[in-house]
Amino acid sequence: MKLAVAWIGKTKSAAIDALTDDYLKRLKQYADTEAVSLKDEAAILKLCGRDGRGSRRRLVLLDSRGKQLTSEELAKFLGDHQDSNPTPLVFAVGPADGFSENARQQADFTLSLGKMTIAHELARVLLLEQLYRGFTILKGHPYHLGH
Amino acid sequence: MKLAVAWIGKTKSAAIDALTDDYLKRLKQYADTEAVSLKDEAAILKLCGRDGRGSRRRLVLLDSRGKQLTSEELAKFLGDHQDSNPTPLVFAVGPADGFSENARQQADFTLSLGKMTIAHELARVLLLEQLYRGFTILKGHPYHLGH
Repeated sequence: MKLAVAWIGKTKSAAIDALTDDYLKRLKQYADTEAVSLKDEAAILKLCGRDGRGSRRRLVLLDSRGKQLTSEELAKFLGDHQDSNPTPLVFAVGPADGFSENARQQADFTLSLGKMTIAHELARVLLLEQLYRGFTILKGHPYHLGH
Repeated sequence: MKLAVAWIGKTKSAAIDALTDDYLKRLKQYADTEAVSLKDEAAILKLCGRDGRGSRRRLVLLDSRGKQLTSEELAKFLGDHQDSNPTPLVFAVGPADGFSENARQQADFTLSLGKMTIAHELARVLLLEQLYRGFTILKGHPYHLGH
């Protein structure tokens, strides 16, 4: 399965960088994952072929107003994509002030990590942990104890 | 305002330690915050006077089955406690497999950070970020842009 995790801007915190690298490494055990740091949301839309030129990728935007999934539901979302859709799946974390209305309308799915507003760099780490957890659920790996 | 953030077990990741320290430092600008690493949940209950001996502290447990608050609602929760309750407020993050039914019954409030099951060390960082964000909301500090 081809996966991309995209975010906007350079990471300011070395600790966030270290956690990003750690979860990406774990995630790559399960999916062909590309990490992409982009300049702005227009670059994310372009990456997903929303400029009408590049090939179209399925785009999941993170936004607290989106739909919340349990870890098991996110695992099912990943599994369903893997089984039915050969195009790469892109998860994108917005800038500090969130995605624009236009970007949200162009997304295939809007995922919420909770009702809270989370610092965008922390949201990225949380997303990576949930993607990794999702694959461990699909594979029956004991990482996910659940409760 | 007196605040304590308690968690169970030693931190395994240096990056989590660095983020914990960073948010604690920021939080201390707003509240007299104590960080407590404890052996098990019994120690958390004892810290909050639930053994019937020590002085009673208000206990908020983190659990994905609890109540979700927006960042603004958590800010109000902190503000209301500050205005009405002189006892220390304790936020506790459980072990990898969550708190027991007994611990949850002894809590004054059960806070959920979202429907997902989050790695407990990451949940701690997220909690600290939300507490810091909560105080910046109360004080009108521009950290919280909101959306």
